[in-house]
Amino acid sequence: MGAALLSEFATEIIVPVCAVIGIAFSLVQWVLVSRVKLTSERHASGSNKNGYGDSLIEEEEGLNDHNVVTKCAEIQTAISEGATSFLFTEYQYVGIFMIAFAILIFLFLGSVEGFSSKSQPCTYDKEKTCKPALATALFSTISFLLGAITSVLSGFLGMKIATYANARTTLEARKGVGKAFIVAFRSGAVMGFLLAANGLLVLYIAINLFKMYYGDDWEGLFEAITGYGLGGSSMALFGRVGGGIYTKAADVGADLVGKVERNIPEDDPRNPAVIADNVGDNVGDIAGMGSDLFGSYAESSCAALVVASISSFGVNHDFTAMLYPLLISSVGILVCLITTLFATDFFEIKGVNEIEPALKRQLIISTVIMTVGIAIVTWIGVPSSFTIYNFGDQKVVKNWQLFLCVSVGLWAGLIIGFVTEYYTSNAYSPVQDVADSCRTGAATNVIFGLALGYKSVIIPIFAIAISIFVSFSFAAMYGIAVAALGMLSTIATGLAIDAYGPISDNAGGIAEMAGMSHRIRERTDALDAAGNTTAAIGKGFAIGSAALVSLALFGAFVSRAAISTVDVLTPKVFIGLIVGAMLPYWFSAMTMKSVGSAALKMVEEVRRQFNTIPGLMEGHAKPDYATCVKISTDASIKEMIPPGALVMLTPLIVGTFFGVETLAGVLAGVLVSGVQIAISASNTGGAWDNAKKYIEAGASEHARTLGPKGSDPHKAAVIGDTVGDPLKDTSGPSLNILIKLMAVESLVFAPFFATHGGLLFKIF
Amino acid sequence: MGAALLSEFATEIIVPVCAVIGIAFSLVQWVLVSRVKLTSERHASGSNKNGYGDSLIEEEEGLNDHNVVTKCAEIQTAISEGATSFLFTEYQYVGIFMIAFAILIFLFLGSVEGFSSKSQPCTYDKEKTCKPALATALFSTISFLLGAITSVLSGFLGMKIATYANARTTLEARKGVGKAFIVAFRSGAVMGFLLAANGLLVLYIAINLFKMYYGDDWEGLFEAITGYGLGGSSMALFGRVGGGIYTKAADVGADLVGKVERNIPEDDPRNPAVIADNVGDNVGDIAGMGSDLFGSYAESSCAALVVASISSFGVNHDFTAMLYPLLISSVGILVCLITTLFATDFFEIKGVNEIEPALKRQLIISTVIMTVGIAIVTWIGVPSSFTIYNFGDQKVVKNWQLFLCVSVGLWAGLIIGFVTEYYTSNAYSPVQDVADSCRTGAATNVIFGLALGYKSVIIPIFAIAISIFVSFSFAAMYGIAVAALGMLSTIATGLAIDAYGPISDNAGGIAEMAGMSHRIRERTDALDAAGNTTAAIGKGFAIGSAALVSLALFGAFVSRAAISTVDVLTPKVFIGLIVGAMLPYWFSAMTMKSVGSAALKMVEEVRRQFNTIPGLMEGHAKPDYATCVKISTDASIKEMIPPGALVMLTPLIVGTFFGVETLAGVLAGVLVSGVQIAISASNTGGAWDNAKKYIEAGASEHARTLGPKGSDPHKAAVIGDTVGDPLKDTSGPSLNILIKLMAVESLVFAPFFATHGGLLFKIF
Repeated sequence: MGAALLSEFATEIIVPVCAVIGIAFSLVQWVLVSRVKLTSERHASGSNKNGYGDSLIEEEEGLNDHNVVTKCAEIQTAISEGATSFLFTEYQYVGIFMIAFAILIFLFLGSVEGFSSKSQPCTYDKEKTCKPALATALFSTISFLLGAITSVLSGFLGMKIATYANARTTLEARKGVGKAFIVAFRSGAVMGFLLAANGLLVLYIAINLFKMYYGDDWEGLFEAITGYGLGGSSMALFGRVGGGIYTKAADVGADLVGKVERNIPEDDPRNPAVIADNVGDNVGDIAGMGSDLFGSYAESSCAALVVASISSFGVNHDFTAMLYPLLISSVGILVCLITTLFATDFFEIKGVNEIEPALKRQLIISTVIMTVGIAIVTWIGVPSSFTIYNFGDQKVVKNWQLFLCVSVGLWAGLIIGFVTEYYTSNAYSPVQDVADSCRTGAATNVIFGLALGYKSVIIPIFAIAISIFVSFSFAAMYGIAVAALGMLSTIATGLAIDAYGPISDNAGGIAEMAGMSHRIRERTDALDAAGNTTAAIGKGFAIGSAALVSLALFGAFVSRAAISTVDVLTPKVFIGLIVGAMLPYWFSAMTMKSVGSAALKMVEEVRRQFNTIPGLMEGHAKPDYATCVKISTDASIKEMIPPGALVMLTPLIVGTFFGVETLAGVLAGVLVSGVQIAISASNTGGAWDNAKKYIEAGASEHARTLGPKGSDPHKAAVIGDTVGDPLKDTSGPSLNILIKLMAVESLVFAPFFATHGGLLFKIF
Repeated sequence: MGAALLSEFATEIIVPVCAVIGIAFSLVQWVLVSRVKLTSERHASGSNKNGYGDSLIEEEEGLNDHNVVTKCAEIQTAISEGATSFLFTEYQYVGIFMIAFAILIFLFLGSVEGFSSKSQPCTYDKEKTCKPALATALFSTISFLLGAITSVLSGFLGMKIATYANARTTLEARKGVGKAFIVAFRSGAVMGFLLAANGLLVLYIAINLFKMYYGDDWEGLFEAITGYGLGGSSMALFGRVGGGIYTKAADVGADLVGKVERNIPEDDPRNPAVIADNVGDNVGDIAGMGSDLFGSYAESSCAALVVASISSFGVNHDFTAMLYPLLISSVGILVCLITTLFATDFFEIKGVNEIEPALKRQLIISTVIMTVGIAIVTWIGVPSSFTIYNFGDQKVVKNWQLFLCVSVGLWAGLIIGFVTEYYTSNAYSPVQDVADSCRTGAATNVIFGLALGYKSVIIPIFAIAISIFVSFSFAAMYGIAVAALGMLSTIATGLAIDAYGPISDNAGGIAEMAGMSHRIRERTDALDAAGNTTAAIGKGFAIGSAALVSLALFGAFVSRAAISTVDVLTPKVFIGLIVGAMLPYWFSAMTMKSVGSAALKMVEEVRRQFNTIPGLMEGHAKPDYATCVKISTDASIKEMIPPGALVMLTPLIVGTFFGVETLAGVLAGVLVSGVQIAISASNTGGAWDNAKKYIEAGASEHARTLGPKGSDPHKAAVIGDTVGDPLKDTSGPSLNILIKLMAVESLVFAPFFATHGGLLFKIF
């Protein structure tokens, strides 16, 4: 079998160095972004070359207008404060939950061997001695908390950067769309790199620390590490759901009164919910997304590690090969670094129509370079032939087969990205058809939009199915896990172009609120429209990777729960399958209803303010933004609990009362059903949003026959957009987490279920 | 093991006698309905007691007005002619397909043993000789055609009865809501009994005829009989999809121009699409539903028979026990007969608010009596203990266990019915909440409606899961099949209350078109609102039974394809599972888009007529109904082909190229995913429809704050209703057939796939 070419010592150096490079790169980007000054000193130094002076040729209007800058800074502060205060409130509640759940993990896992602190024979190799279950319980708890904290950090930092960058993007938009694009994209990159590097570094450190206790017991070591994935995903669940409800309650509420009833533009400062709406973009789309993708990353790494630990890597203690998943992520950081330079330094965006191609180019470049990166890592990082644990058997895998596993995931991600773009960008016929259907009113718009979402599922599912088939056939569940890692290996770039969207959205909001000119608003709108598509692409990646990750976790769970087949032809499994397929519907019902109810409250408050604050509509009086922020905050905190409980409790209840077979059925059902709803929900919503923007922008002959703003087709498009809001930003993306989280939770609790589970069947 | 108490001779008598009783009963009902005269001779005989004279006390207005009667008769003729002409066109196209598919069946199944006409050792008992595969191919083809013809007959007769009854219901509405209800309900009963009895009788005769050739080779005999289910379901697919597109294109098109743009009432005779809309109710909701439920019935019987043929019944040639599925259906006819009397003779409806309880009572009564019926049949029809084939093993089953299997299906059906009623009737809070959300516009209405649909899935899925668990645990796949039969045993009642809906809908339309008074329209509206709920209940039954049926067929397929496990943890099965779960989305995308496009064409035509026919809006000129009928016909014929092809070709392609394991995965995936979408789509649509009716009726304080017709909330409700149309009447109900048909098709072709399938994997 042989060992990897790369020595253990080299691996121990490469991984942290790459992580540090990633962090350093993100700091450099931050410094570049921060050169855009938001204080009035910019007013004084405006003429004496502050590093951007040489590009002032594009300057058009009020570039150094003191008032505008101050106003932008004020609005930014309000958004940043709102977001920070919400996240702190959210973290308080979630923190309590996390501590309670950590205790639960410790108790459940500790009880597996009756809290005995004696070493036990290993599960897969009875001749060796492994650390006691109590130790695994303790270390799982620690890694759970570590994962949760890293996730919080990822989300929080992302939000901070985004709220730091939004006003700066607005100000740069005065100089031209290219400048604004670079600021928004750089800020996205800060978040992307920070998150990717952070996740890698914490995981790396945790493994090395845990190893000091576990020594040669890698089985126990990597079992304990799975807690990291669970922690990351639990946090992500609440981030996504809470943030999603927050942002959409504010958005829907603001639109329903502002756009529909009062006929004032989006993001008009007179709208009391406008700050809450902009805060929402940051806590939902940025912090939530950050936590979500961090969760996927952590989970796929954990799934790969736990399978590897009982394969030849683990048994032979080949540390380099064992850390193959981390090596891939390390190389991914370097690849994304090079890719980013293409967007920020090698090329410059000149016009509005270059934005989308530039973002797409990022995806292609990173995928191509990464393929080479994977080849190198696989060549030096794993032996040319090794064995992988495959539900009881050992399966021989060649290194080129492993290369194909990772690559197929990577390229499937690209395909999913492109299909998503095709179905959600208004440059292609699907969205244009949806826009066209607005001629006959909102009903046909909704029908066409739903049909579009359903249709957009087809190719991604085939892409996922092919990835699964290839990687499963070559390297069983390890193959699936590394395919997921392949898809996530360019996460820094993915997150950069994803975070770019809400930042641009905010920038547009700030331009409107600061009363900047129509031209600038047009530029930010163009940035934003591209952002809608990239957000959908980001969601596509998130869902695709979630599908692969949860399958890998599912496989790891099955291995660890010591079941060798999950046979659909047994009643226990089948009822799990059908009930599992139902859970995404239950979950979506909860989250959509939550958004609906919270939005109704918001509508009442906004209407109240318009009716009772004299001079508000005329712009003489300031609305009471804080009350709207509070409504969104309260609603999302309250409403995130039932769906959260559904996701967190289901595996515990099913595993404890019905046992591991039924739980396996539930996981398979949730996976195959949830992935479809998630893709269709997020694409439907994206398509509606861009159909509306298509009509508003009026860039083509066809679009102009549907517009302008305020026309009947436009009104119908606004209704579609509003329906799509909770689909694409609340229920859809939360489903990723649903499917991953249930799988990773089952994996962590597998020893408990295998020992004490299935109470109901034991009784009867 | 012993034999059944009932002798073979008695069984041979009981089954056909019950079927004949059912047919006779339905003829009696028909005669009663036909007593309402539609010709002007009624004018002369109006006063001299024509059998209804004694109840003329409720008579209020123009009862014998010659004009109104003539007008009703005219409209009825137009609807009936439109429906007949559409069905003939449809049957022509489908007929060609059926013949082609019949040839395909013969060729595929004949090729299994290379068209050899020699007898072969049996599959499950190698010591005996069975008829050659060529014979099975031939008889499968015959029973396929038989099933298709019976299905055509069921749908066609249903349509004929409905179009015969609609105007009669309108005329009776002049005498009061009770009289109208009885006519509508009796007509539904005609269809219900005719269909149930017909399906039973044809199956019974086919078995006896085939037996003359097959003799003791029951394995081959009942394998050949499965073609009956396939034929029934193939026909149902086109009926549902074609009819569904027809009805909703007309409905959506008529509403979008008539109600929304021109502000004229529903079913206004000035609307050019009004006849097409009313024709649609008959070809979609009546003929389509009839074919669908007949298909379910045929398939569950076939699934039970094919499993039984390789169990102790078949091996011991216990004919009575073998025909147990038919005995249940026979008793079901008698039970439904008694139940019907409760609605038509024992009680009389006095007021509008008694309609829904009366219909609900039908469900409860039939379920209670049927439970007793099942007990008796099980006691006398099967031995006290017997063995059932269970994927390679034989499982011992007691007769009381079998009783529980059938009963659990029956009662699960009732629960699904009640839950559906709760979520779609405007007497309860879910629909009222949806109506309330119309205050803030169409967007919140759509969001709440979608959430309601998702939520309504929860309890039905648990009911189905429990039925599956119980029946699966007791009697493996035979248990599932008889549970499905249990749910369908009261099919005559189910169809009666289901067909009642579209008949009332048509009656309302005729009242409006004939210019009858507001009071009469109010009565038909009340009948119709109850009809929406019962239609949803009917769909609930259809979906619940489809889930059980397709699982039973799936099990039979797996047995026949000689696979012993369907392990999710193999790549072949898993990719099947995830792709299968995607198919309902693909299918729904096609059907919804079809309705959308056809509706757009209809809108253009209706607008054209309003704009170009002088005096149309003023009521001086007659619109050109025929063109609208033609648009619906052409669109539905053209658009039913792609979704039909998707359903029919998928099992063939997957089975031939990927083999039986992947196909098994696809079937499981389609089943668990499709059932959810089907339930949620049909309930969402029903809820929107009734939320609109809730606002229109203004029966409560709350409802009045939202209305009246034409208010903003009402307009929002109309948009929801329009979106719901294709969901509840096209894509949702077609999904039942999707899941059943793919399973039964796989079952029929199983010997071919097992022999020649999996080409791709054989090559690589």
